[in-house]
Amino acid sequence: MRILIVNVNTTEAITEAIAQQARAVAAPGTEIVGLTPWFGAESVEGNFESYLAAIAVMDRVLAYEGPYDAVIQAGYGEHGREGLQELLNVPVVDITDAAASTAMYLGHAYSVVTTLDRTVPLIEDRLKLSGLYDRCASVRASGLAVLELEADPQRAVEAIVEQAERAVHDDKAEVICLGCGGMAGLDEQIRQRTGVPVVDGVSAAVTIAESLVRMGLSTSKVRTYATPRVKKVVGWPMRLGR
Amino acid sequence: MRILIVNVNTTEAITEAIAQQARAVAAPGTEIVGLTPWFGAESVEGNFESYLAAIAVMDRVLAYEGPYDAVIQAGYGEHGREGLQELLNVPVVDITDAAASTAMYLGHAYSVVTTLDRTVPLIEDRLKLSGLYDRCASVRASGLAVLELEADPQRAVEAIVEQAERAVHDDKAEVICLGCGGMAGLDEQIRQRTGVPVVDGVSAAVTIAESLVRMGLSTSKVRTYATPRVKKVVGWPMRLGR
Amino acid sequence: MRILIVNVNTTEAITEAIAQQARAVAAPGTEIVGLTPWFGAESVEGNFESYLAAIAVMDRVLAYEGPYDAVIQAGYGEHGREGLQELLNVPVVDITDAAASTAMYLGHAYSVVTTLDRTVPLIEDRLKLSGLYDRCASVRASGLAVLELEADPQRAVEAIVEQAERAVHDDKAEVICLGCGGMAGLDEQIRQRTGVPVVDGVSAAVTIAESLVRMGLSTSKVRTYATPRVKKVVGWPMRLGR
Amino acid sequence: MRILIVNVNTTEAITEAIAQQARAVAAPGTEIVGLTPWFGAESVEGNFESYLAAIAVMDRVLAYEGPYDAVIQAGYGEHGREGLQELLNVPVVDITDAAASTAMYLGHAYSVVTTLDRTVPLIEDRLKLSGLYDRCASVRASGLAVLELEADPQRAVEAIVEQAERAVHDDKAEVICLGCGGMAGLDEQIRQRTGVPVVDGVSAAVTIAESLVRMGLSTSKVRTYATPRVKKVVGWPMRLGR
Amino acid sequence: MRILIVNVNTTEAITEAIAQQARAVAAPGTEIVGLTPWFGAESVEGNFESYLAAIAVMDRVLAYEGPYDAVIQAGYGEHGREGLQELLNVPVVDITDAAASTAMYLGHAYSVVTTLDRTVPLIEDRLKLSGLYDRCASVRASGLAVLELEADPQRAVEAIVEQAERAVHDDKAEVICLGCGGMAGLDEQIRQRTGVPVVDGVSAAVTIAESLVRMGLSTSKVRTYATPRVKKVVGWPMRLGR
Amino acid sequence: MRILIVNVNTTEAITEAIAQQARAVAAPGTEIVGLTPWFGAESVEGNFESYLAAIAVMDRVLAYEGPYDAVIQAGYGEHGREGLQELLNVPVVDITDAAASTAMYLGHAYSVVTTLDRTVPLIEDRLKLSGLYDRCASVRASGLAVLELEADPQRAVEAIVEQAERAVHDDKAEVICLGCGGMAGLDEQIRQRTGVPVVDGVSAAVTIAESLVRMGLSTSKVRTYATPRVKKVVGWPMRLGR
Repeated sequence: MRILIVNVNTTEAITEAIAQQARAVAAPGTEIVGLTPWFGAESVEGNFESYLAAIAVMDRVLAYEGPYDAVIQAGYGEHGREGLQELLNVPVVDITDAAASTAMYLGHAYSVVTTLDRTVPLIEDRLKLSGLYDRCASVRASGLAVLELEADPQRAVEAIVEQAERAVHDDKAEVICLGCGGMAGLDEQIRQRTGVPVVDGVSAAVTIAESLVRMGLSTSKVRTYATPRVKKVVGWPMRLGR
Repeated sequence: MRILIVNVNTTEAITEAIAQQARAVAAPGTEIVGLTPWFGAESVEGNFESYLAAIAVMDRVLAYEGPYDAVIQAGYGEHGREGLQELLNVPVVDITDAAASTAMYLGHAYSVVTTLDRTVPLIEDRLKLSGLYDRCASVRASGLAVLELEADPQRAVEAIVEQAERAVHDDKAEVICLGCGGMAGLDEQIRQRTGVPVVDGVSAAVTIAESLVRMGLSTSKVRTYATPRVKKVVGWPMRLGR
Repeated sequence: MRILIVNVNTTEAITEAIAQQARAVAAPGTEIVGLTPWFGAESVEGNFESYLAAIAVMDRVLAYEGPYDAVIQAGYGEHGREGLQELLNVPVVDITDAAASTAMYLGHAYSVVTTLDRTVPLIEDRLKLSGLYDRCASVRASGLAVLELEADPQRAVEAIVEQAERAVHDDKAEVICLGCGGMAGLDEQIRQRTGVPVVDGVSAAVTIAESLVRMGLSTSKVRTYATPRVKKVVGWPMRLGR
Repeated sequence: MRILIVNVNTTEAITEAIAQQARAVAAPGTEIVGLTPWFGAESVEGNFESYLAAIAVMDRVLAYEGPYDAVIQAGYGEHGREGLQELLNVPVVDITDAAASTAMYLGHAYSVVTTLDRTVPLIEDRLKLSGLYDRCASVRASGLAVLELEADPQRAVEAIVEQAERAVHDDKAEVICLGCGGMAGLDEQIRQRTGVPVVDGVSAAVTIAESLVRMGLSTSKVRTYATPRVKKVVGWPMRLGR
Repeated sequence: MRILIVNVNTTEAITEAIAQQARAVAAPGTEIVGLTPWFGAESVEGNFESYLAAIAVMDRVLAYEGPYDAVIQAGYGEHGREGLQELLNVPVVDITDAAASTAMYLGHAYSVVTTLDRTVPLIEDRLKLSGLYDRCASVRASGLAVLELEADPQRAVEAIVEQAERAVHDDKAEVICLGCGGMAGLDEQIRQRTGVPVVDGVSAAVTIAESLVRMGLSTSKVRTYATPRVKKVVGWPMRLGR
Repeated sequence: MRILIVNVNTTEAITEAIAQQARAVAAPGTEIVGLTPWFGAESVEGNFESYLAAIAVMDRVLAYEGPYDAVIQAGYGEHGREGLQELLNVPVVDITDAAASTAMYLGHAYSVVTTLDRTVPLIEDRLKLSGLYDRCASVRASGLAVLELEADPQRAVEAIVEQAERAVHDDKAEVICLGCGGMAGLDEQIRQRTGVPVVDGVSAAVTIAESLVRMGLSTSKVRTYATPRVKKVVGWPMRLGR
């Protein structure tokens, strides 16, 4: 089975880190293909950048020529998953949802630790729309930007551990979700430091995508995610910056 | 005061209808400028098209050269308003929210009558995120596509009245919101036929935008809608299809 | 157009302050008439006083002889708006709702800063019933009574700023609503001190009332706010204390 | 122990029916005193009448000269209970709450059958504010006005049974609450006809009031229901129509 | 009338304390029978123990030979009440619900103070399922285990008072519920120390059970709590440890 | 990896059907061990039977002697999962949650089709506690008892398809969950008949359990699901009916 995993920002190094994390958890026989959008922001930290990423991700996935069995959108709290679901017939899994639905099997409440404070409402809103917010104890910001995480993983670990501990003690979280695709690979260290299960959304998404494919399940086409109607669309596909 | 009102689809005739409706309600001294996105779908009826419109609307507004005091996004249940709020310092009003918040002054519960069934969940989700869903009795589809509404207003009136009456009798709505920018101008007929207040989102949005400007209020920049951080963004602005 | 703005307490000085604030924001051609109830408490800070005000406000409005186009009830978190909606055919706007629905256009979440702690649950309950509570981050008390606000505006500003800052930092509010009719006129100072938009309910209500009138919209009469049935009512109208 | 039970409307015959129902369930040693407001509507069926009743009820209770141990407000979905709680040191029980909290011990969900459609939103709102709405399956109107119930109990039974059966079959209610003080005494007939438990709010309120008194419990005075502050109040007490 | 009150754990001393508290509030003519389960944990502080208690309580009640009019399950936040409701035709009252529904007559919000932190989510979940959580300000743990409460009541009072005060000041509770059957009898001391009403669930449950019996009301059998269908059940009744 | 899948009722044929379904989806290298409780009801269709099953399932799992990596509780809407989570260090997955969390990846809303009407509230309540209810469109009963499903699969298919179609058309479900362990194996037929994705909880649970094991994740032990404290427990383990 082949799974496409799409970064939401244009920084190749993050795509590689994500793909590496995905491959580490993938079942034998699963091929992971990492994709980087051809346009958009080098890091996605807000609504404008997230909307742009939504379109760039769809554009990039549609441009992929080979066959594939599932798509993972590897941005935490980002827009666009519903669009991919309309455009594709294979299952689409967002890492925000994947981390949350996985965390709910591990404890009574979970918290998300993310990057900047400004992204907190985006994550909360996505979880609300996905119907996975009821048992969310909190979404907390580490204060580090996406590229800072990337540049200094050890500092990232410290900042995430600090918020994770507050989440456990003050907010009564029992599980921590890593709230950024760029945090892929830090889960084990944070688990050791906090003593609670730590869910990496990329890993979780790979297992969910594989599972859906294995069960022969894909997006329902009866209503919300029906294929777009045939109509005139100007400027699409975009293939900008290619 | 100058207010930009942006259509979400690329059909110029709808932009004109919207702008005309906006001018009819605008206060003396308010100039209404209708904008049509330079790319995207001729009608927006689902998530892919709506995400594309989100970006096309931001792109079109940023390309507008003159000064302006507020922006109205004239799509019902569409994505993108939060992005505009980040990018601009003037107030941004979405007609989905404008119709709902206005309807809540007129009755205990309101319903929205929109176009196709597939757009119903989008509208519900936008209202939930906007915090305006609690008193929504229902969102109902007329079964007519955006361009069908445009092509045959009388058929549109019939289809909307039928659903509006069900909303009042079965769902206990006391007010009806017209759930499509392309329904601008039909409110009076539907009001006469149903006997309940009918809110046109375009009109409502104009009055709200004017009011915010008059009170000197604009988007808070402390967190969610802070200006995007300076970073490398490939392929932006787009100006596609210009 | 003539708008009646009714104070909820019997202190004339507050009526004057409210009417002055209303006139400052009113459009050219809008006449603002301030009304003071003929009976009730000098300041309304709790349920008993608020229920009494509800009746006194209805009584005072019905006693007004000239024509008018809309009515504003200028008490924050008070009872009675639904009664006015039944009795009148013109639109009725409560400043609690007006501030909240306006704030929701300006940020992802808003807080209210009010007078005494005992009034906090009243405001929360009114916002819940109005369907405007979902994006309320908190309702905070300044600790100052209504008449203390009136007597010492500078002390009021300090107390409000302190709570507003906590609302922004601790509760994640992005907009502040002034939660008392008697705070009319303090918005600008508090905006400068806190750096976030500050919504004065009186101003907001004036623009909303004007907008409803301009759009030809008024209270739906099909169910909740239908005109009271004809029946025997003892002791009404009251005209007490006149 | 002496319990005052206050009718919300001025029709003495209803006060008598309510008091009779209360006496039938009261424990030995409990004296029931029925009170009729001195002013207000002959039947309360909407917000204006309900607000007026709120004040008339407070006024009537304060005018009662003898000692008493608890007060029951015998109107379904009416305003005012919070005011009584502020003014009195003895427990206050509203029949709306009493029926609902009792019904919740008897089944997984309950429905209320009330009088006119226009009162449905009032009841729903009161239950929401009381925190007793989560397991409410529906509030249904029989279509009969308060005085029609009073005039023709057999017709009332038929109309209530019809809605109760729909509540059980369509809305999945397992218990029915009689949603009008004037329905006191009909519970047994409706229970036999529907086969589900039927809760009369007056009876339920009597047992709850007795229980609170027996346990030495009364309204908390720390915040929401603290005694009103001493201040100038014009036109109070009212004693209108005496 | 005879009411069975069943302890959830196997510590006889707690059964006696509970029964004594129940007798203190019971009406003349009410006989209280305390029952201790024949098997299960000496103290119930978590899900496994609570599920075991659920079955042990059902088993013990079914083994009781004499007639009885109602059953009280005297465990705070424990499983099993729904099972008893299916098996019995008499009313069943859980002290968790009884304390909460009683507290809601006394203040705008209540908090529960319980034993160990691990039991907090159980109590929250039970209140949610019972539909009594909306006005719950918080559930707080005293940090004392059930048997520690039993062994050192004075230490228990101190620990409960500390959390009760935080509930009132920080969480805005106006009423405190004692969140453990083993706290029976401490209510008066805590009321004096905190100045707010304190509800003991055992007392509350006795009055509610008596009231239901007096009104001739019992569990609805139409759906959720219908008598179990006749089928083969292995190992039941259990009568373990007898 | 070895996964124990525990039936909730004592009918061996259902255990076999469940295990067969589990094996069909399990990854190479996953060993599925089906367990039947040693005591309890032949079919679980209500609270009493479900509570008994909860204990019987825990008892049966603890009696299993070999090593294992995860446990699946194969009852839809049943009690007990939280107890297993306390007692075990390996992940525990309930098929109710597994079906729901999987369905949420496939459509905007899902419905459950189950057996008897009396089990509907149990399923709804379990989904609410699991935080997976927000996007549940409905839980519908086929009207067939568990053993009827087992005895006549074709009749079962017809009854399930009828309700599934109503769920899609009337309740706006886009995905159907099979709400009974005994429905294992019917998913493909129902998918073909309804045209929407059909999720079998057993299959979903197997993939989730495998995924958690593969990621090295298990139940958080910091609070709700901490190992039970050491204490005296009478009558445990039970090993009844062995």
